[in-house]
Amino acid sequence: MLNSTVLLNDFCYNPLNPIDNNHYLGKKKVKNVILLIGDGMGFSYTTGLRYFNHDSKKGLMNPTIFDRYFVGTQSTYSLDTESNITDSAAAGTALSTGYKTFNGALGINIDKQAVPTVLEYAKFRGKSTGLVGTSQINHATLAAFAAHNESRNQYDKIADDYLDERIDGKHKIDVMLGGGTSYFYRDDRNLIEEFAKNRFGYVTNLQELVTNKNEQLLGLFAPIELPKKIDREPTVPSLSQMTKAALQRLQQNLNGFFLLVEGSQIDWAGHDNDIVGAMSEVIDFEAAFKEAVHFALNREDTMVIATADHSTGGMSIAGNDNYKWNPSVIKSTTSTPYVIAKKLHETKDMAILKDYIHFTIYEEDLKKIQSTIEMEVEDTLQTLINIINYYSNTGWTTKGHTGEDVPIYAYGVNRHLFSGRMENSDIAQILFQIID
Amino acid sequence: MLNSTVLLNDFCYNPLNPIDNNHYLGKKKVKNVILLIGDGMGFSYTTGLRYFNHDSKKGLMNPTIFDRYFVGTQSTYSLDTESNITDSAAAGTALSTGYKTFNGALGINIDKQAVPTVLEYAKFRGKSTGLVGTSQINHATLAAFAAHNESRNQYDKIADDYLDERIDGKHKIDVMLGGGTSYFYRDDRNLIEEFAKNRFGYVTNLQELVTNKNEQLLGLFAPIELPKKIDREPTVPSLSQMTKAALQRLQQNLNGFFLLVEGSQIDWAGHDNDIVGAMSEVIDFEAAFKEAVHFALNREDTMVIATADHSTGGMSIAGNDNYKWNPSVIKSTTSTPYVIAKKLHETKDMAILKDYIHFTIYEEDLKKIQSTIEMEVEDTLQTLINIINYYSNTGWTTKGHTGEDVPIYAYGVNRHLFSGRMENSDIAQILFQIID
Repeated sequence: MLNSTVLLNDFCYNPLNPIDNNHYLGKKKVKNVILLIGDGMGFSYTTGLRYFNHDSKKGLMNPTIFDRYFVGTQSTYSLDTESNITDSAAAGTALSTGYKTFNGALGINIDKQAVPTVLEYAKFRGKSTGLVGTSQINHATLAAFAAHNESRNQYDKIADDYLDERIDGKHKIDVMLGGGTSYFYRDDRNLIEEFAKNRFGYVTNLQELVTNKNEQLLGLFAPIELPKKIDREPTVPSLSQMTKAALQRLQQNLNGFFLLVEGSQIDWAGHDNDIVGAMSEVIDFEAAFKEAVHFALNREDTMVIATADHSTGGMSIAGNDNYKWNPSVIKSTTSTPYVIAKKLHETKDMAILKDYIHFTIYEEDLKKIQSTIEMEVEDTLQTLINIINYYSNTGWTTKGHTGEDVPIYAYGVNRHLFSGRMENSDIAQILFQIID
Repeated sequence: MLNSTVLLNDFCYNPLNPIDNNHYLGKKKVKNVILLIGDGMGFSYTTGLRYFNHDSKKGLMNPTIFDRYFVGTQSTYSLDTESNITDSAAAGTALSTGYKTFNGALGINIDKQAVPTVLEYAKFRGKSTGLVGTSQINHATLAAFAAHNESRNQYDKIADDYLDERIDGKHKIDVMLGGGTSYFYRDDRNLIEEFAKNRFGYVTNLQELVTNKNEQLLGLFAPIELPKKIDREPTVPSLSQMTKAALQRLQQNLNGFFLLVEGSQIDWAGHDNDIVGAMSEVIDFEAAFKEAVHFALNREDTMVIATADHSTGGMSIAGNDNYKWNPSVIKSTTSTPYVIAKKLHETKDMAILKDYIHFTIYEEDLKKIQSTIEMEVEDTLQTLINIINYYSNTGWTTKGHTGEDVPIYAYGVNRHLFSGRMENSDIAQILFQIID
């Protein structure tokens, strides 16, 4: 395993990418930083949300919270020798450390040296820290802020590091909320028990989350990832509920805090080319961003930055040579296609479709769906996804990531520092400068 | 025909879209405005240019001029009752008048009333005006600044209006450079001769353009559109050469000028899903933007704004589930696929391919191309386009437009007014405010 000794000096020098000093003009130190990353959330996703929210057929579309706080864009490419499109680990590392690196790498530079993250720096400065997401909390983007590993796939090791690694003798992360019991309760190690012994609270559902009083908290709400928002039971917290719970704890530290919030599964829905899941997760993320801005409103000591690590799927608003995108089709679908496909296979009953899909599907397409019920769930899933994409005129080009620049949204006194176009690594460099 | 009387009062009030007064904080009146529109040039295109320019396989990508001047984004949707994705006429009208309207409409609002354009307002203020593009100069985007018509397809009428309509008794447009002899020299009317009688110079190639001394000038370099930059003979001017020629003339007016420059065929390449043509036209547009910024450098009296009217084709950097976009394939293709396809059909000789395509095409794909030579040019064209997209990993979702927000780039004292996210119509509203 990598030597993860963190060198906590010389925080702002990155010889690969000395950003223009003008970026720092008028910078102010702040006590608290909330960074939100919508994984895979390129411009098509945030513009899509505005279309999705547009109820009336006439008049201007209402701005979303993203529209209100849009300030700049960042370039996402990694320094991988094989791939010029980033993965989430390399992009997460650029955003967490200021170093672009190779795909798959967490918290290490291209020379495989561990480099400090903004979360670690915040802890070094005496602040509290938190990681909140809807994937397992040891997944790539979140892990890039609190682990140093050549491979994002070392899930067990990353979970171990969350407990074992210390900064100035203190636990690196004070609040961890998301999915991942499978990685924390294992045959070889029971991290949940160990965290408890270290005076962390442990919660597994919304009720426990809102009643718990521990200042340090581990919350794991699913074996791996949480269900997507649209599929989530009321007992499972939303991203904004987790964000709120994290903020309640972190703000008790008089030195301030650093909180990372990830909308983890916008990307996963993008990989599936599933527009229902994608909109579900953008909406969940939007609510968390609102929660963060709500916290920061009317105070000078907190910066909120929301961005993406890359875009996913080559999603486009309109497709099929058509000049009309139909979010009504998406709004008329009440679960992700995966849940619907599973239900169809459990029941073998096409009649259950009407419980989930409230737009009219033509006979020909109903027959296509029916023909897959005796095949694999995956076949039904793909058929449903294709139908929803076709009826809504949603376009996709890939099951992977795409390279176009992604948006930056910011609220707070240093908002201007994030304006214009920058590299993803510049964001971390600015954070190192402004964290008090 | 529409009553095109232009109401030149109350220029800045648009009841549909009263933009936040903060947008105008610190605004300064300027003498000159250069607005450049990259038709169809969404974020994938300008990010694509950065990848395209990146020669080395290592290190950071060099910023483009777009990166340097990026300030904001705008939302492109029109107020069409049938389509929520704009066409170029409606987007051009929003950018020229401050009114979102229905698709196909030029210089009229949703109630089909003619509304004044920023070009007309500039003329009303005693300035000179120009239209420069690589399509026919009476095509949608350009026409949206100088005509008022329910239909963008009224090409002859629009060309007539360019000559016939006056502002305070003066010709509306002083410099027109682009394509379109077919529309200006017709059986029913010879507008070229009429412009000459009105003391306009007339030029048809680069040599004539650079030697001509007329202050008012009509330059038509092709029957309809100019060839794409990569296919253009040296006798046909580039967009930057036309921009320079226009600026030389317009700046002679002590009251200043308004110049619109359109990279018209970025969009057309997007409609064709032709990445070679798309990069050719983005490069041509980039050079024109540089020319405009060069003019404005070190002077306080000129604003340069570059933007797009919408994005086209759902183009993505990377596709085919692959994490590598290969601009080397595009750079190794020396003409657009259309020119190559035509040449293959003229010669019936596969050997000519090596004159145009310098990357290795697999035997199987060569056979595919060969099989189309006895079919239509269109079949060969589609085969070439598919091969180039596949080898370069370029994704496309549609032959039409897409709805995601598009970038705004700006240079000059009012740069900040264009920051953040706004409606396309806000751009015109700001222009009305800052034109002296």
